[in-house]
Amino acid sequence: MAMPSNEICIIGAGVAGLKAAQALVDSTKFSSKDLVILEAQDYAGGRLLTSDVKESKLGLKYDLGAAWFHDLLSNQTLADLIAANDPDIFDVGEDGYFDNKDRKVYNQDGPVNMIELKLNRVVEEMEKFIEIYFHDSLDVKDVSLSEIIEEYKRQYDVFLTPIQKKLSGQILRYLELWYGITWDKISGKYAIMDHHGRDLYNKRGYKTLINYLCKSIPPQQIHLNTQVKKINRNNQLNDYNIALETANGEVFLCNYLVVTVPQSVLQLDPKHPYGLEWNPPLPDRITDALSSIHFGALGKVVFEFATPWWDLNEDRFLILASENDTVPSKQITESPPPFTFPAYVLNYASIHKSASASSLVILTQSPLTEYLEAHPEKAWSYYEPMLRRLCAHGQSVADPINTITSKWTQNPFIRGSYAALHVDDDPSDLIIQLLAQFPGTGLYNCPIRFAGEHTISDGAGCVHGAYQSGIDAANWIIDNKV
Amino acid sequence: MAMPSNEICIIGAGVAGLKAAQALVDSTKFSSKDLVILEAQDYAGGRLLTSDVKESKLGLKYDLGAAWFHDLLSNQTLADLIAANDPDIFDVGEDGYFDNKDRKVYNQDGPVNMIELKLNRVVEEMEKFIEIYFHDSLDVKDVSLSEIIEEYKRQYDVFLTPIQKKLSGQILRYLELWYGITWDKISGKYAIMDHHGRDLYNKRGYKTLINYLCKSIPPQQIHLNTQVKKINRNNQLNDYNIALETANGEVFLCNYLVVTVPQSVLQLDPKHPYGLEWNPPLPDRITDALSSIHFGALGKVVFEFATPWWDLNEDRFLILASENDTVPSKQITESPPPFTFPAYVLNYASIHKSASASSLVILTQSPLTEYLEAHPEKAWSYYEPMLRRLCAHGQSVADPINTITSKWTQNPFIRGSYAALHVDDDPSDLIIQLLAQFPGTGLYNCPIRFAGEHTISDGAGCVHGAYQSGIDAANWIIDNKV
Repeated sequence: MAMPSNEICIIGAGVAGLKAAQALVDSTKFSSKDLVILEAQDYAGGRLLTSDVKESKLGLKYDLGAAWFHDLLSNQTLADLIAANDPDIFDVGEDGYFDNKDRKVYNQDGPVNMIELKLNRVVEEMEKFIEIYFHDSLDVKDVSLSEIIEEYKRQYDVFLTPIQKKLSGQILRYLELWYGITWDKISGKYAIMDHHGRDLYNKRGYKTLINYLCKSIPPQQIHLNTQVKKINRNNQLNDYNIALETANGEVFLCNYLVVTVPQSVLQLDPKHPYGLEWNPPLPDRITDALSSIHFGALGKVVFEFATPWWDLNEDRFLILASENDTVPSKQITESPPPFTFPAYVLNYASIHKSASASSLVILTQSPLTEYLEAHPEKAWSYYEPMLRRLCAHGQSVADPINTITSKWTQNPFIRGSYAALHVDDDPSDLIIQLLAQFPGTGLYNCPIRFAGEHTISDGAGCVHGAYQSGIDAANWIIDNKV
Repeated sequence: MAMPSNEICIIGAGVAGLKAAQALVDSTKFSSKDLVILEAQDYAGGRLLTSDVKESKLGLKYDLGAAWFHDLLSNQTLADLIAANDPDIFDVGEDGYFDNKDRKVYNQDGPVNMIELKLNRVVEEMEKFIEIYFHDSLDVKDVSLSEIIEEYKRQYDVFLTPIQKKLSGQILRYLELWYGITWDKISGKYAIMDHHGRDLYNKRGYKTLINYLCKSIPPQQIHLNTQVKKINRNNQLNDYNIALETANGEVFLCNYLVVTVPQSVLQLDPKHPYGLEWNPPLPDRITDALSSIHFGALGKVVFEFATPWWDLNEDRFLILASENDTVPSKQITESPPPFTFPAYVLNYASIHKSASASSLVILTQSPLTEYLEAHPEKAWSYYEPMLRRLCAHGQSVADPINTITSKWTQNPFIRGSYAALHVDDDPSDLIIQLLAQFPGTGLYNCPIRFAGEHTISDGAGCVHGAYQSGIDAANWIIDNKV
């Protein structure tokens, strides 16, 4: 039997892999016949996963993975969707929602008046302090976000009211819901982000981006349920220099390879059932770089209710954690007390401008994500005492009629959310090694490209970063193809 | 008659000159006998001017020049005042007020709901757009703040609601009240500031800083009403290599000179009655640099009222200009219509936490500053229709019982406020030439140092910048003194 062979193989049908495929097909050098996408799971999209409307009791769809367009001033994904000018794909006015109203903050005692307490400016100052502290010289020792917050409060004690001192650090823990890890783990050095503009919530769901990308690729070129297990990068047996072997023993041959598996999969031991076996093994400079960065676990819990009982004027709520002695990152084996972790809550009724979209979408951080994804039935009892603080005047909290949780930490092909920087991690070494643009880095001069959110600086961890990394991988192949 | 001679002369008893003197006196190499300060005006303080309580009908004092400690994370002036630990000088809890509550915005139609209209995020995005636009490459052509705002609105039209489009640019005109010039003049390239922390309003008045600095210097070493007119920097007649001649014909000899006159004075033609005659003339590299930067005209108008009629919960109001066809920077010869310029209003009653501190302090920009400083009697009729928008519920506007205006543009020794960057100006050339740290720059290797807000990057235009420049000038002399 002839082994299937293609000029290009792409491992992974997430946004990076699909965009790489689209860019290759759109070039003059390749057509869709020249490539094949091998996807381990039974769907295209990877960490873009819009839930099926049948899972909802309200007829809604939820993005259980990425849901936003970030950094609107430099978001090529959104620019391309708008340029496509196809209302079946994306209509920015209809499908986009700027959820950048000042977030409404609550703690155990009720609403926190950010303006009267002048907390907005204190939090900005704290962020600037962190930026200056670490960028003052190149060799400042990294410490955790929680430690650098303590340092700020120590140095500027005289400028802070007691309530500002109590709440400002807890407010900055909203970053846990960006990175998917807790503040005792978050690298202080890389905690503060430089956003390029606002964020747009994608009401239609990111499924639409997947559909748009898949238009360029004939369905038969995407092999689902096809987990690549072995990569022979010095294939000698025939005209193709790369041979891929799947978990089922199928072999695919190619001359160019784009590897878009999540960083968490690259980080697995090759012998692990979900790891990749490289032959010859990856050079130490890549495996070393893989050990200098972590993988977060941002998750989502969706509660659907018969009718809303919270303030419909606010689109986002931040519920602060209480001060407590728990080590936040410690693995959870039973339901923690409420207010152990800060919660970031999205009000779907406001986003959809309809009280019938009566659901709250909550972002979760590791280790809560692992616990709730494994025990979704525990979600409501943990969150209920926190969410009841959101009750609108005269309303009282009701039990949900439906709960949906993400499953990313349960999914052996994903294993969490995206790259995250722990204390002392290095944000750029892995990118340098995987891109291999310079002699002595990664798989330099080798027709294997890496793509995905973990392979790019601008848009790291974001859909538009993964998308751009797919374009970059495709361009490399187009430029190098003789 | 023996000519007065000192090791060091300092021209100007503003914060830069006084701090230089204090630092020199505090060093082991010099004592107060070694220096003399020559001040053209009849008071020490320069552009720090706390009004006399007798000018007020409410028993209040106002800083008609600088009033804030800016950039608290890196403000050495404030740190030193706190370290002095003398409640007669400054008590941060008693005398400092964080006026960094989110500003309350009004326009012709009344209050602007910044949160509901999501304008905070749009203005942040616009600022980030401007930053990215100009820092994308080194040779992006400068345009005015008003033009770059138009460019943003053009590029991101699809992301803006009509009301956001109408108001966001007007809101960004608050920068006119930082720079003291209008948005058609402000350099877009350098418009966006990177603040290092919050601002602290100095309730006691900056007079206290002047008093603190003057403690180190015997009064007889400060010569008031002594305008230096000529600087002979190659004096051959005696043991001192620098000879200064005053407007009265007095001569002062010295070996080291610190020149802290405002940039506006340095920019005058030597023949101008308030200009400096250098012999030999300043090198072209300095005079060229002086022509590549401008001088702003931030002013203040204080209205005192019998009782307050505005919202006492807000500490700052920004009243937006209306869209109009006036060229904002055009010289004013008669009262402009209200809402021609944005106004920034400080609520003294809130800052002093007392309704009896019933005054509003308004910042003005050029060309309004020049007009109102020349015609203070016109101030109320211009501002009344704007200020009436601030009326608290059930209150109506009352005429002021007293009006105080700054006089900076009328003062021939000051001539405005501080350095300001017009389109195509260069923010660093003048600093490089005046500091002359490198061969081929300014008065390299010459015992003449410049100091003041126009001679420093960190804290440019601010009290703490001028203060630091005085320290730097003193340290240069200390290090170079054999």
